[in-house]
Amino acid sequence: MSENVVPEDILRLIRDRGHFVLLTHIHPDGDALGSLLGLADMLSEMGKTVFTYLDQPVSHLYDFLPGCERIRCSLEALQDFRRQAGRKDLVTIVLDCGEDERLGKDKHLLLDSEPLVVIDHHRSHRNYGHLRWVDPLRSSTGEMVYEIAAALGQEFSLDGAFNIYVAIVTDTGSFRYDCTGARTLEIAGRLLARGVKPEQVAAQIYDNFSPGRLKLLQLVLGTLDLSDDEQIACIHVTNDMLDRAGAAIQDIEGFVDFPRAIRSVRVAVFLKELDDNRVSVSLRAKGAVDVADIAKEFGGGGHRNAAGCRFCGLSLEEARQRLHQVIAERLASHLP
Amino acid sequence: MSENVVPEDILRLIRDRGHFVLLTHIHPDGDALGSLLGLADMLSEMGKTVFTYLDQPVSHLYDFLPGCERIRCSLEALQDFRRQAGRKDLVTIVLDCGEDERLGKDKHLLLDSEPLVVIDHHRSHRNYGHLRWVDPLRSSTGEMVYEIAAALGQEFSLDGAFNIYVAIVTDTGSFRYDCTGARTLEIAGRLLARGVKPEQVAAQIYDNFSPGRLKLLQLVLGTLDLSDDEQIACIHVTNDMLDRAGAAIQDIEGFVDFPRAIRSVRVAVFLKELDDNRVSVSLRAKGAVDVADIAKEFGGGGHRNAAGCRFCGLSLEEARQRLHQVIAERLASHLP
Repeated sequence: MSENVVPEDILRLIRDRGHFVLLTHIHPDGDALGSLLGLADMLSEMGKTVFTYLDQPVSHLYDFLPGCERIRCSLEALQDFRRQAGRKDLVTIVLDCGEDERLGKDKHLLLDSEPLVVIDHHRSHRNYGHLRWVDPLRSSTGEMVYEIAAALGQEFSLDGAFNIYVAIVTDTGSFRYDCTGARTLEIAGRLLARGVKPEQVAAQIYDNFSPGRLKLLQLVLGTLDLSDDEQIACIHVTNDMLDRAGAAIQDIEGFVDFPRAIRSVRVAVFLKELDDNRVSVSLRAKGAVDVADIAKEFGGGGHRNAAGCRFCGLSLEEARQRLHQVIAERLASHLP
Repeated sequence: MSENVVPEDILRLIRDRGHFVLLTHIHPDGDALGSLLGLADMLSEMGKTVFTYLDQPVSHLYDFLPGCERIRCSLEALQDFRRQAGRKDLVTIVLDCGEDERLGKDKHLLLDSEPLVVIDHHRSHRNYGHLRWVDPLRSSTGEMVYEIAAALGQEFSLDGAFNIYVAIVTDTGSFRYDCTGARTLEIAGRLLARGVKPEQVAAQIYDNFSPGRLKLLQLVLGTLDLSDDEQIACIHVTNDMLDRAGAAIQDIEGFVDFPRAIRSVRVAVFLKELDDNRVSVSLRAKGAVDVADIAKEFGGGGHRNAAGCRFCGLSLEEARQRLHQVIAERLASHLP
């Protein structure tokens, strides 16, 4: 299912047709939105008529993306657009969406269009649509949209280049994840040559702490509990800490990466006190044990190195002790 | 003083001579060490004899750099090497060192060699040495060492490529700072094509906290002082905090990025209490004001968005107040 060049039949459709509907998955991240807006930009530069649809308005985290005001949330307007385009001039392209379920509750209506082109890089991709370019070795769907433009000999506007750069940066963790390839960096370099300013992208994506979030980080780091062998690190947050910091629960994003960053740590645990005597848990590993497997034991799930679960009716300390015991057992049984 | 190609006379010296002493600044960071070891690797691949000198052993933060065991700290051994090389076959190259003062207390002995080649990218560079390639538009000295290899048609070993990649990543903040150019990313892409694994570099640079370092981060974040308009953020570290955390002064690396990450902040200040009533200062900006210019006012220097200086005979609080006043004035005069 992997192809490292853009299929010719997809390029032909883009060249020949005049009306395009662009879709992506619900709760879109930087790659979903960046590739959507980047492709919309390229098509507009080619003189095509484009309708970009999302089920909800763009989150405040991404409303800095240039052109995001062109995104429409009206199914009725989408249907009107399709009718006016006429079947023979219309293409629907779904970006960064590994399975059709992730198009949300209106997926049947959204997918009721022919031809349906799918561009995606998810390893867990499940085939759908009529024409597909799926390459799990690509860093991001944004990188794939760049390749489409390159194959067509088409330039991005500066806004389009910015969106593609955001897509690549967010899905590679700023070029740190193993999905970052030589071609990824080559493309990123060309986007900078086009005029994208990396510090402006980084400022929008990473320099977005509120003072309260930094205060909360300080309080949370104060809860660090390291096992004697320094392989298991726990931190936690309570409602009282949120209040004292003047922060919101969304502000904890990324905090589990701090205990994870301790060199000796193999499993990092972040416990969050929720209302109703529930405790939500994030687990992070570095390959030594499968934390999805541990989370499953407590009714949760996830990936090998990033998983989560919830406890009901336990205190933070009780939840911590139960997890610690299971993790320590797993680590002991995985010793070389 | 800027040249975007490697001066031919420097290339000629590297081609013609057989013995090389490589130096860099005291308290070397990732770019200093990465470019030093990268150049040492390239020269060794060319069959040259290389002596890499540092005044102190490599910090534990960077002891993962391949080849760092080749770094010597003995002035006596350095003198022996120079004597054995003979004047006519010897070149001394100083990397990433903006001014000769940053070679430390033994600078006179270290610089007492001819020819002395200087490779540097600091904007506040003060000329010294006999042959210079100084290009403040380059992201890092590592990038410049790559250009030297490219100009010589010389390949790096995988270890050498890894060191150059570390140099570039650390000085660009993982390709986030404005010093990151199209050429920077192009070079980084070629280093990945050479076999460097970006996730391995990231794990070493970013997941290398000691428990003491995390404890220190918690104490330092507790000192956050935000101006009323939330544009200037100060943090500080004292010797007492280092003691309490069981951390070393090198553990503070990167801490200044936390106040910098507050969305409203335009200038972040990190004050470090040194012995002898001295205060060392790191300044970070986001383009609104030139912190190299501010640092210069206090006898320091650096780049537009990352600079430093020192105060003698002032308390932390006195230094903070003096800096705050100057920064506030600059911000006020730079308002749109």
